[in-house]
Amino acid sequence: MQERLDSDDFDPVDDAKRSSMIYLDNAATTLWKPACVQEAVIKAMSSAGNPGRGIYQAAEDAEKILLQARERVSRYFHAEGAERTAFTQNATEALNTALWGTLREGDHVITTAAEHNAVLRPLYALRRDRHVDISILPVNARGILQMEELHSLFRPKTRAVVMTHASNVTGNVTDIKTASSIAHEHGALMITDTAQTAGEIPVDMQEMGIDILCFTGHKGLLGPQGTGGIIVRKGVQIDPLLRGGTGMQSFDEDMPECLPERLEAGTRNVPGIAGLSASIEWLQAQDLHARHHREMALAKNFLLRIADIPGIRLYGEYDGPDERRIPIISLNIGDVPSGEIAELLWESGGIAVRAGAHCAPLMHIAQGTKEQGVVRFSFCCHNTEEEVESAALLLRSIAQSLI
Amino acid sequence: MQERLDSDDFDPVDDAKRSSMIYLDNAATTLWKPACVQEAVIKAMSSAGNPGRGIYQAAEDAEKILLQARERVSRYFHAEGAERTAFTQNATEALNTALWGTLREGDHVITTAAEHNAVLRPLYALRRDRHVDISILPVNARGILQMEELHSLFRPKTRAVVMTHASNVTGNVTDIKTASSIAHEHGALMITDTAQTAGEIPVDMQEMGIDILCFTGHKGLLGPQGTGGIIVRKGVQIDPLLRGGTGMQSFDEDMPECLPERLEAGTRNVPGIAGLSASIEWLQAQDLHARHHREMALAKNFLLRIADIPGIRLYGEYDGPDERRIPIISLNIGDVPSGEIAELLWESGGIAVRAGAHCAPLMHIAQGTKEQGVVRFSFCCHNTEEEVESAALLLRSIAQSLI
Repeated sequence: MQERLDSDDFDPVDDAKRSSMIYLDNAATTLWKPACVQEAVIKAMSSAGNPGRGIYQAAEDAEKILLQARERVSRYFHAEGAERTAFTQNATEALNTALWGTLREGDHVITTAAEHNAVLRPLYALRRDRHVDISILPVNARGILQMEELHSLFRPKTRAVVMTHASNVTGNVTDIKTASSIAHEHGALMITDTAQTAGEIPVDMQEMGIDILCFTGHKGLLGPQGTGGIIVRKGVQIDPLLRGGTGMQSFDEDMPECLPERLEAGTRNVPGIAGLSASIEWLQAQDLHARHHREMALAKNFLLRIADIPGIRLYGEYDGPDERRIPIISLNIGDVPSGEIAELLWESGGIAVRAGAHCAPLMHIAQGTKEQGVVRFSFCCHNTEEEVESAALLLRSIAQSLI
Repeated sequence: MQERLDSDDFDPVDDAKRSSMIYLDNAATTLWKPACVQEAVIKAMSSAGNPGRGIYQAAEDAEKILLQARERVSRYFHAEGAERTAFTQNATEALNTALWGTLREGDHVITTAAEHNAVLRPLYALRRDRHVDISILPVNARGILQMEELHSLFRPKTRAVVMTHASNVTGNVTDIKTASSIAHEHGALMITDTAQTAGEIPVDMQEMGIDILCFTGHKGLLGPQGTGGIIVRKGVQIDPLLRGGTGMQSFDEDMPECLPERLEAGTRNVPGIAGLSASIEWLQAQDLHARHHREMALAKNFLLRIADIPGIRLYGEYDGPDERRIPIISLNIGDVPSGEIAELLWESGGIAVRAGAHCAPLMHIAQGTKEQGVVRFSFCCHNTEEEVESAALLLRSIAQSLI
C-alpha cells in the first residue's frame, strides 16, 4: 500500500532532477511523447466545443477530431471501420465494458493467470452478480501461459476467452492468433487486452481474430493519460456499461444501437483524444519494426549486463524472437523486498522503475512473488545505451551491498 | 440526429472565423478557460508519471497533482475530506456510478422530469436489471418542478432521490436543500447532478444535504473535457461500477473499501485533472457572486431584447432572484424547427447556440417540444454586452424573415 502524500510538500518539478532521471517505467506510462501530441492537446483545448452536440464550427471541429482519431485508431489496429471504435478513459473502462457488455447470466468465460486486475476484478463481480463461471488458463512458475491446456477448458456455455496480448509482469507475448482460432472453433468470442502491446508490436485485429480489442492511449501509443478505447467487430452484440446523453435519439430509453454512440455516454475527452490521434499518426510514420527491435536491443543489453548478478532471479522467458517479447525485464535480488531495490535505484541513481505487485495477482502467486513483488524495468526507444548501462551498474552494486 | 461528418473536409481552424464567433453554448462546454488551465495540462503532460504506482519523482508528482486536485474540489464543494472525491471522465460516469453503486434489487428511487439522460438511462437499465421502481416528480408546462408533490412519492423501499441542481433546458435551479431534508426524513439518500451549476452558483454539499454529488469539469468549472467526479459523504455505502487496478491491495478480488481508490479503477486523466485543479483554484480567487450576477445580467439583457419578438416562446421561469437561475435562455420562434434557427444564427452571424432535444426527454415532452426542440442560449461571464446585442438583433431579424 502506498504511503499517502501530503500536498503541502508539493513542489514544482525540479527540472535538473527530472532531466537526470533515467525513466524505466514505460510499461506504466510512457513519459516521452512526440511534440505533436502536446500541440494537438493545446489546439483542441482552445478550439474544440462539444462534439456531436452543435452545428457551429467549434462543435464540428470537436466532432472532426473524434472522427479523425477513430479513423487513425481503426487503421492502426486494422479494424473494420472507424465507427467500430468507441473512446474510453483507459483500458480498464474498455475491459469492464467488454466483459459486462457480453457476458450474461450463467455464461462461462475463460481467462488466464497472466491477466491484470482490470480483467480479473470485473470477472469476479460477474461471477457474483450474474453467476458467470470462470476458468483460468494457468501459467508455469516462469509465468508462461500453458496454451496447450486451452482446448480442455471450453464448455457448452463458454461465451468468451479474455486474454492479455502480453503480460505486464514478464513481457511475454501471447499467441492470440492461435488462441482465437481455438475460441472461434468453440463459438466463443476473443476479447483481448492490448494495454501492453498497442504501439509496441503489430496488433492486427482481423489477422489475429480479435472480436473485441481494448487499448490504452498513454503507454506504447504515446498518447495522453485519460485516453483509450474499445473496438468491436461487426456482428458482435455488446451492451453499454455507462449510459447517458449521446447527442442523438434522446427520446429512446436505451442507448442507440449503433456504434460508437452505443458505448460513448457523455462528453469525451476531446483534447486527450486529439493528442492520441496525433501520436498514432506520428507512430504510423515510423518504422515500427525498427523501433521495437531497438527497444528489445536495449532490454537485451540490460539483461546481458545483469544476468550474472549473484542472487538474481528473472521472470518470464527470454528465448525466441523479438516479436514474442515486449521490452520488460522483471527480477528480484535474493529475498530482498522488490520495493527496497526500487527505492535504492531511485535514491542512489535517479532510476525510475516499478516494484511490488503489478495488479496481476495470479501471476505473482504462480511465480511465488506474492510477498516480494518484482522489480520491473521497462524500456522505450528513447532510452539510451548509457541509461541502460547506468541502471545495470547500479543494480549490480545494490545487489552486492545487500546480499 | 446529427449528420455524420467526413474527415476529408477537416480543415485547420480558421482563426478569423473563430475570433468572430459569438459563443453562446457555454452550458455544453465552456470554451473560455483561464490561462493557468492550459499551463497545468502542459506541465502535467511533460512531467507526471503514473499516480500511485511508483516511488520515484514523476509518479509522486502525479499523485500530488491528484491529491491537490482532490483538496481543491473538496474545499469548493464543502466535502468532508479530500479522499471523498473520486475522479471520473465526466458527470455521466459519476451518475452511473452513484446509481448502480447504491440502488439494489427491488429498491425504489425518485427522480424528476427535469433530468438529463445521464440519470434517466441508467435508471431505466436498473429497472430492467434490478427491478428498481422509478417515480418521477413532474414539471409543469414551463418546465418547473412540482416540488410540493415530492412528499407523496416516497415508499418504504425508497433508497434515493436523484435530482439535478439546475435544468440544462430551462436554467431553473432546484431547491436541493428542501428536497434533501424531505429525502432524509424518509431515510433516503440525496444524489445530485451539478453538471449545470458547479462553478456557476454555490454548491455546499453539507449545507444542502447532498449525500452523493456528481460534477463535470468542462462546464462552469472551466476545466478540460474528460474530467469530472463523484463525492460521497462519509457513511454512504457505494459499490464501484468499474473495477481494475488501483495500485494497492492487488490480491483482493474486489476493489478496496476505502475512497477514493474504491471508485478509481485504472489510470486517471492526470493532465486533465491538473487543468481542472488549476481552474478551481482560479475560480476560488474570483468573486463568484459577482461573476454569477454578471452572467445573469447578460442573460437578462438578452431576454429584455428578445421578449417581444413576435411568435417567441420562452421556457422556464424568469422571476425570482439570480440565485434561482443559471444563465440559460431557451426559446422557440413560432413552429420553426429549433435546428433551423440555430443554423441561421450560425450561418448569418457566427452565433453558436444549441438546438434540438437537450438529452432531457421528459422535459421536452412536458413542454411540448419533443419534435421542435428548443434553441438554447447559454452565457458565460466572458461574453460581452455587444455579443448579447448582436445575438438578440439577429434573432429578431431571423424571426421576422420566418414568421
